Amino acid sequence: MKEFQIIEKYFAELGPKRKDVAVGIGDDCALVNPAEGNSVAISCDTLVEGTHFLPSMEAEDLGYKSLAVNLSDLAAMGAEPAWMTLALTLPEIDETWLEGYCKGLYEISEYYGIALVGGDTTHGSKSLTLTVNGLVPPQMAMTRSGAKVGDWIYVTGTIGDSALGLDILLDKQQIENESYKDYLVKRHYRPTPRVLAGQAIRGIASSAIDLSDGLGSDINHINKASGTGARIDVDTLPLSEALVESVGKEQAIEYAISGGEDYELLFTVSDANESSLITSLKQTGVQFTKIGQITSGSELTFKQGKLKYHPVKQGFKHF
Amino acid sequence: MKEFQIIEKYFAELGPKRKDVAVGIGDDCALVNPAEGNSVAISCDTLVEGTHFLPSMEAEDLGYKSLAVNLSDLAAMGAEPAWMTLALTLPEIDETWLEGYCKGLYEISEYYGIALVGGDTTHGSKSLTLTVNGLVPPQMAMTRSGAKVGDWIYVTGTIGDSALGLDILLDKQQIENESYKDYLVKRHYRPTPRVLAGQAIRGIASSAIDLSDGLGSDINHINKASGTGARIDVDTLPLSEALVESVGKEQAIEYAISGGEDYELLFTVSDANESSLITSLKQTGVQFTKIGQITSGSELTFKQGKLKYHPVKQGFKHF
Repeated sequence: MKEFQIIEKYFAELGPKRKDVAVGIGDDCALVNPAEGNSVAISCDTLVEGTHFLPSMEAEDLGYKSLAVNLSDLAAMGAEPAWMTLALTLPEIDETWLEGYCKGLYEISEYYGIALVGGDTTHGSKSLTLTVNGLVPPQMAMTRSGAKVGDWIYVTGTIGDSALGLDILLDKQQIENESYKDYLVKRHYRPTPRVLAGQAIRGIASSAIDLSDGLGSDINHINKASGTGARIDVDTLPLSEALVESVGKEQAIEYAISGGEDYELLFTVSDANESSLITSLKQTGVQFTKIGQITSGSELTFKQGKLKYHPVKQGFKHF
Repeated sequence: MKEFQIIEKYFAELGPKRKDVAVGIGDDCALVNPAEGNSVAISCDTLVEGTHFLPSMEAEDLGYKSLAVNLSDLAAMGAEPAWMTLALTLPEIDETWLEGYCKGLYEISEYYGIALVGGDTTHGSKSLTLTVNGLVPPQMAMTRSGAKVGDWIYVTGTIGDSALGLDILLDKQQIENESYKDYLVKRHYRPTPRVLAGQAIRGIASSAIDLSDGLGSDINHINKASGTGARIDVDTLPLSEALVESVGKEQAIEYAISGGEDYELLFTVSDANESSLITSLKQTGVQFTKIGQITSGSELTFKQGKLKYHPVKQGFKHF
């Protein structure tokens, strides 16, 4: 089966139809019409087998996750998902795998209303690159660089789950409770991109980033871009019951600080905007927690009560 | 060296600055502002080492070519290059290679005014995916589906050179004349995307495609999309002196029909629009040649004088 036959069969009809797509898959380019006045947010992420996902990962989960991580970048800018292209490199044509991959991709693309408008399928080691486009009203996009001294630091959902989920998959952690285990692995394989939350806080939050490298690492991206420091109160970190019950509070905090791939939003808000932010976010139904404050200087400090807390590590490597 | 350090060092300052880029490399997404009313053309292409390029290919040539093939897709739609993202997968951090790659990419991105706005660098077998965005005024984009019976078929430049260049690199052909050899290999490594020609014929040509798979294969893409057939007059095919002198007229025609990666534009124009097309294209200085006519039915026929010509093969595989 040749490349364009694969594209036609599996991808031509995938995803929602959007009125702003004038030409979809099958021509030299796709042609889209951005809503007038809007900015276009663009992000791309590559997932390589063995580096970013385990060879054992189900195709359907990979289809879901490959888009979820890209949508998470759009969420961090406050952008509304619009179009995407998929570059898929495969060692061989495995129709079962392709069907599963498309099913997972279809599920999440339908949910968030993002249309597949183009792509490329090639022969090689398994990897995939998704490039996503989102729309943002004028001057509403959030960046990493807007945090100001005194701003409060918030995070959506719970953090640390995904990293423990990965450790379970790698047999580095043994968890007895099956429902905790399922939840944690699912948080790793099927992260929830905070697309609505991102749109709810745009124009209100002063800066935002999505948590892919881990809290301890990603907060530094905000600090570096904003010229600020930060204080994180570790006792306020939102930890799931599954995480705490499985590994204990102490290790749960470590997972929350250094564990990557949560794909929750980390954002800052001025004191003046805090109440509008809370009102706006509550309408989305997404959990959110205040975890610290932006400080002067460039230092990142963790506090537990009045004491300094020293995390074992702050960064995250896939595996 | 970590991912974001690589990005910062090699890519952050690469390419021209554009006023329509509000946020470039370094945030969760890039943010661009398309000129009001314009459509955005999107295309992506993956190049995998061993499948699309030889391991011996110079990094600088690869940097150039990886963008050239994507710009060629924009050219076929009549789009003006605007922004791009680069997903680069490398087995190891080789700074010499990265410098070379960036130099080639920089050269062509500067020339065509396309800004690198985002990307991802990952660890794995060497491959790269470029996703390009171009701008097209309303209703001006060309597609493959607009050819009508009686339309004339045109091609830019000369064709077949790149495929012979590849055969030289693969030692399948021995060419004595060094300057021919250099020219042919350069046509393979450094194809010229017909960006200006594409913009010159938009609104005039009835359909267009870029020649990546070979004339005999790509004309069928137009036919399939337009519901037409075509007659190609093989004696009119534009062949370079280097191609004809190196392998003789007969084999040169075969290269022109089945050889891929010319990245010339193949397009159709109605009888009524032919003179405006010629006027408009002449201003670009790009060579162009009438090579046949769109016919009814769905058949592709090659003619040599009054006789039918039967090419040995019509398609093209990389290697």
